[in-house]
Amino acid sequence: MAHTPVVDVLKGQHAVGDTVLVKGWVRTRRDSKAGLSFINLHDGSCFDPVQVIALNTLNNYDDILKLTAGCSVSITGTVKESEGQGQALEIEAQDVEILGWVENPDTYPMAAKRHSIEYLREHAHLRPRTNVIGAVTRVRHCLSAAIHRFFHEQGYYWISTPIMTASDTEGAGEMFRVSTLDMANLPLDDKGHVDYSEDFFGKETFLTVSGQLNVETFACAMSKVYTFGPTFRAENSNTSRHLAEFWMIEPEVAFADLNDVAGLAEELLKYVFKAVLEERRDDMEFFAKRINKEAISRLEKVVEQDFVHMDYTDAIEILKNSGKKFEFPVEWGVDLSSEHERYLAEEHVGAPIIMKNYPKDIKAFYMRINDDEKTVAAMDVLAPGIGEIIGGSQREERLDVFDRRLDEMGLNREDYAWYRDLRRYGTVPHSGFGLGFERLVAYVTGMQNVRDVIPFPRTPGNAQY
Amino acid sequence: MAHTPVVDVLKGQHAVGDTVLVKGWVRTRRDSKAGLSFINLHDGSCFDPVQVIALNTLNNYDDILKLTAGCSVSITGTVKESEGQGQALEIEAQDVEILGWVENPDTYPMAAKRHSIEYLREHAHLRPRTNVIGAVTRVRHCLSAAIHRFFHEQGYYWISTPIMTASDTEGAGEMFRVSTLDMANLPLDDKGHVDYSEDFFGKETFLTVSGQLNVETFACAMSKVYTFGPTFRAENSNTSRHLAEFWMIEPEVAFADLNDVAGLAEELLKYVFKAVLEERRDDMEFFAKRINKEAISRLEKVVEQDFVHMDYTDAIEILKNSGKKFEFPVEWGVDLSSEHERYLAEEHVGAPIIMKNYPKDIKAFYMRINDDEKTVAAMDVLAPGIGEIIGGSQREERLDVFDRRLDEMGLNREDYAWYRDLRRYGTVPHSGFGLGFERLVAYVTGMQNVRDVIPFPRTPGNAQY
Repeated sequence: MAHTPVVDVLKGQHAVGDTVLVKGWVRTRRDSKAGLSFINLHDGSCFDPVQVIALNTLNNYDDILKLTAGCSVSITGTVKESEGQGQALEIEAQDVEILGWVENPDTYPMAAKRHSIEYLREHAHLRPRTNVIGAVTRVRHCLSAAIHRFFHEQGYYWISTPIMTASDTEGAGEMFRVSTLDMANLPLDDKGHVDYSEDFFGKETFLTVSGQLNVETFACAMSKVYTFGPTFRAENSNTSRHLAEFWMIEPEVAFADLNDVAGLAEELLKYVFKAVLEERRDDMEFFAKRINKEAISRLEKVVEQDFVHMDYTDAIEILKNSGKKFEFPVEWGVDLSSEHERYLAEEHVGAPIIMKNYPKDIKAFYMRINDDEKTVAAMDVLAPGIGEIIGGSQREERLDVFDRRLDEMGLNREDYAWYRDLRRYGTVPHSGFGLGFERLVAYVTGMQNVRDVIPFPRTPGNAQY
Repeated sequence: MAHTPVVDVLKGQHAVGDTVLVKGWVRTRRDSKAGLSFINLHDGSCFDPVQVIALNTLNNYDDILKLTAGCSVSITGTVKESEGQGQALEIEAQDVEILGWVENPDTYPMAAKRHSIEYLREHAHLRPRTNVIGAVTRVRHCLSAAIHRFFHEQGYYWISTPIMTASDTEGAGEMFRVSTLDMANLPLDDKGHVDYSEDFFGKETFLTVSGQLNVETFACAMSKVYTFGPTFRAENSNTSRHLAEFWMIEPEVAFADLNDVAGLAEELLKYVFKAVLEERRDDMEFFAKRINKEAISRLEKVVEQDFVHMDYTDAIEILKNSGKKFEFPVEWGVDLSSEHERYLAEEHVGAPIIMKNYPKDIKAFYMRINDDEKTVAAMDVLAPGIGEIIGGSQREERLDVFDRRLDEMGLNREDYAWYRDLRRYGTVPHSGFGLGFERLVAYVTGMQNVRDVIPFPRTPGNAQY
């Protein structure tokens, strides 16, 4: 008999009276004076454990009395209606096989008590066994699956852009170098510089910071594409919103202008929030109870609301006339800071904002210049409670305008040869955006720190496991 | 009016007589003496282009006569039943807007003629516009979507294991180093060695070669998990089957033994092959016609056949008694080479083989020792026409046996502290396997070289784009 996931037992997939086999780990054991024990068994298949009743007539009841949090067991038993509170169904054990003990329950790092989130982070290999990280893992999966499903249903193709790249197009600041050179004996050229021609790729090579430029090549052939892969920043940022390694989703759409992808962003967010609310209600209720009481209500609100489009220039006026005193002064041309974004989304509008048409000087070289020659067709999605969650733009598809921009910024046309080719041969208007996956998971779960929503976080000084 | 994907027009989503707007790129233009032109327009949404009839009564017909392969256009027209061969429906243009010309059609790298696959590889940013790479891209997406769907439907969670890792558990051979140290001024310690404590992570760090050890930590909490992410090998291998950067799928299942994951592997392959046969018939017909005439039939055969389980020890006997002369001699204890695997799968059995229980000395330290003490619970899936496509094993879950193995192999227990913890605290039998995604795509499409089934291949000396 194959074993049954706990979720199937709890959802009543087996009739009362049926014999089932469940396998998992003990969360708690409680003994009753009436000569029986209650074992809460979890297997990761859902938030709730299943309650197992073990009577003292079981031949290994002495062993059962030694079960502690984390022990692994295989239990055959009968599905029963529960007389206790908190669950409709439970299992009365016919046989309890103990698969794995906990070496020393007193020093077991995940013993059944409340641990701080920082402590869990230091035990990243065991923290999936906790309620909170188990719930994060299921929600993270649900979001990832929903994102892939959303794009698939809409006719997008997933493109895996390269992780290691010798391309100069991104600028080498804040990047991780990838190399196989012997650090103890670096080859040098005539001038005494490191000779990367002897490196694995014959060139200095880095980890990607974005798949956008690469994926544009596919948008300009397949029309609708997206990336979903890891990206890297070697920033020395020790904040709750930064990781050196994080996952990013980057749709890129041919024949789409800024408003088209603004609409796509709204649709995507609503789709994945709905998926979580429907598919992971159990975990979301836990987050609402223990992490952020608005975890569910704010998602429900976003799903129902129309996102409000707002021009950067108008936003500056609103901020100036708000009567609020901001830490960072507001003036046309400045980048909006978190306090500005949150005021606009939370206080002024009370809904997600799609902020558009930023000053060109604070945005990237590839963004499309608007007719005013001062702004670019860029957009950010600002969500109440978190601020910027998506950043995107229409790309400059006009070769002459693009070349002028490169010149202005002192960039070299030859370094952008393949990117320019997309504009030389059958150029089309196209647009896209980037969504940081960990910030999305943090927003959805209410978790305060992105380090707790990725299996093994990488931050300055930390690449354990 | 939003524009319509070509696939919707060809599938008859719009009635004959309807006006549609399509956008895409010209594949070919042919002029008729009758005063009209035929434009084949593709947009990546399916293999076939749509045929557009442009009459010389269009006011920009002079421009239309200059359209060449790769030009981008936006066409409004009427859906018509086609009188020509090769398509049921076509579009009669009411308006042809030319969005982007090809700078110099004579030097356009993707001009409408047959290019060698090696030539296309050197123009990786434009090759998605070709029939063959377009088809590969759609099939690759279809496989990726089917893999995620398969696991989601079966209750598995996607886990993103880390890309950068300071973990010593894999052994540092053939790995890429990741660093932010200034190569021109490397910090040295007292002994004159490179001082990695000053590096970004405070430790020597590499790109992952497999997510398996990491994902075991999640299997031992969530029960059913899988990875789907990039992995790296700094091998100097210039073959048609090796990439320095490739994607891998690694399911890991708690409470599963070797036969359980052998069954999972069979189910997974059949599921994704069926998905391709159903969803990408158009592209598969192209591959069968132009790349490998068995592209469709061999997938259909695999879907229908039961995979044959075979013990390594029996396979050695079969090979010895085959009467065949092999280049590499056959003896118990040797690793099977490609000629052996193909003889067994193609000639002896004529079906995919699940080869099990290999000599422990040719397999990894984490594989579970069988009762004979000579073999481990490892398996490879050998497919006719390609050889090994999946490799997996049951993991050693018994701490004492695992420690003995580490000792035998001269490995240090402290380096495996977190991996050993999984065996110290509620250990469970668990198993998993790895499937190289590019080898899968190559097998399905019949493409000879894995460099042509990944958007931007990374190989020794090549990290362009």
